[in-house]
Amino acid sequence: MYEFFRQYLNEITSSIISDAEFQHIEEAFAIKSMKKRQFLLHEGSVCKYMAFIVKGAMRHYSIDEKGNEHIVRFGVEGWWMSDRESLRMQTPSKYNIDALEDCDLLVATNEQLNRVKELSPLFFRMAHLLDERHSIANQNRVHASICYSSDEKLLDLMKNYPDFLQRFPQNMLASYLGISPETFSRVRKQINAK
Amino acid sequence: MYEFFRQYLNEITSSIISDAEFQHIEEAFAIKSMKKRQFLLHEGSVCKYMAFIVKGAMRHYSIDEKGNEHIVRFGVEGWWMSDRESLRMQTPSKYNIDALEDCDLLVATNEQLNRVKELSPLFFRMAHLLDERHSIANQNRVHASICYSSDEKLLDLMKNYPDFLQRFPQNMLASYLGISPETFSRVRKQINAK
Repeated sequence: MYEFFRQYLNEITSSIISDAEFQHIEEAFAIKSMKKRQFLLHEGSVCKYMAFIVKGAMRHYSIDEKGNEHIVRFGVEGWWMSDRESLRMQTPSKYNIDALEDCDLLVATNEQLNRVKELSPLFFRMAHLLDERHSIANQNRVHASICYSSDEKLLDLMKNYPDFLQRFPQNMLASYLGISPETFSRVRKQINAK
Repeated sequence: MYEFFRQYLNEITSSIISDAEFQHIEEAFAIKSMKKRQFLLHEGSVCKYMAFIVKGAMRHYSIDEKGNEHIVRFGVEGWWMSDRESLRMQTPSKYNIDALEDCDLLVATNEQLNRVKELSPLFFRMAHLLDERHSIANQNRVHASICYSSDEKLLDLMKNYPDFLQRFPQNMLASYLGISPETFSRVRKQINAK
């Protein structure tokens, strides 16, 4: 579990973390296993953890008044899952996070995260680099959602996250793109026929 | 110019920056004035600057094949403007950034930003805190764009950025929300009538 995280840290920061520094990280992050369909976060609760996915897949979503699910993010191996607003501000979340497959996670609370950022300069640097990546990815996602047609949204997904199409059901992918399952199915057939 | 930035830095980090540390920041950031309609970034160019807005308003947008503008972000006093993907990766941008009003900016290149992050721990901390805020704001924007109706999008904008409605024309606000100007106008009338 921790070895995967250690490799990940070294890769992201292009560094080699020392045993002493990694020990702070091991102390901050606990191992948590989740079965498929279990929840890491329920709407209305305060988000407890920042979770690093070692194995498995998760989704981060809201449910509207009509009972429709809206998937904001998927997460797979080497990705992070949390509602950062709720975690950082300690406010009730408007989101749910659940496991789409059995998952092995490394989790830290807000206090533990703050502490490890102080104790490990390399972890702090990783957090900064990741925020930058997230910021770029989110900007592209905002751009796609306001200006792409359904075809372009699906093509963009196929290009950037081809594994999602194998791993997640069509209705979830449609929700993630903000298009109807019928449109998703029609556009996918058209693209595949080309 | 720099005094506003200094206050901003102190506020964001809940600290008081020393003269010695602020000098690194003054050295890294140059003053740049822009007239309304001038461009900070053209599509196809590599983004040169991270810009802090001291006075004025800007927009960050793309133009699609049909010539339609899609506004990803607005920026006003105390906000940052840049295409971070292009700036960090030094790749051609798919966006334009221009001035909606006459602007006073403080700008730094990628190299200068990296340098000042090394020289000033407080600046580095500010960058980290801002990334976190951006990440939260972007997540809310993604969520709004995939699951809100046109009414909800406009209500959300009115709640979070009421000054935008006074400051920017309706067609730009409609583009920012990813709805047509006709829908924007109709929904706004309905909301105001309530």
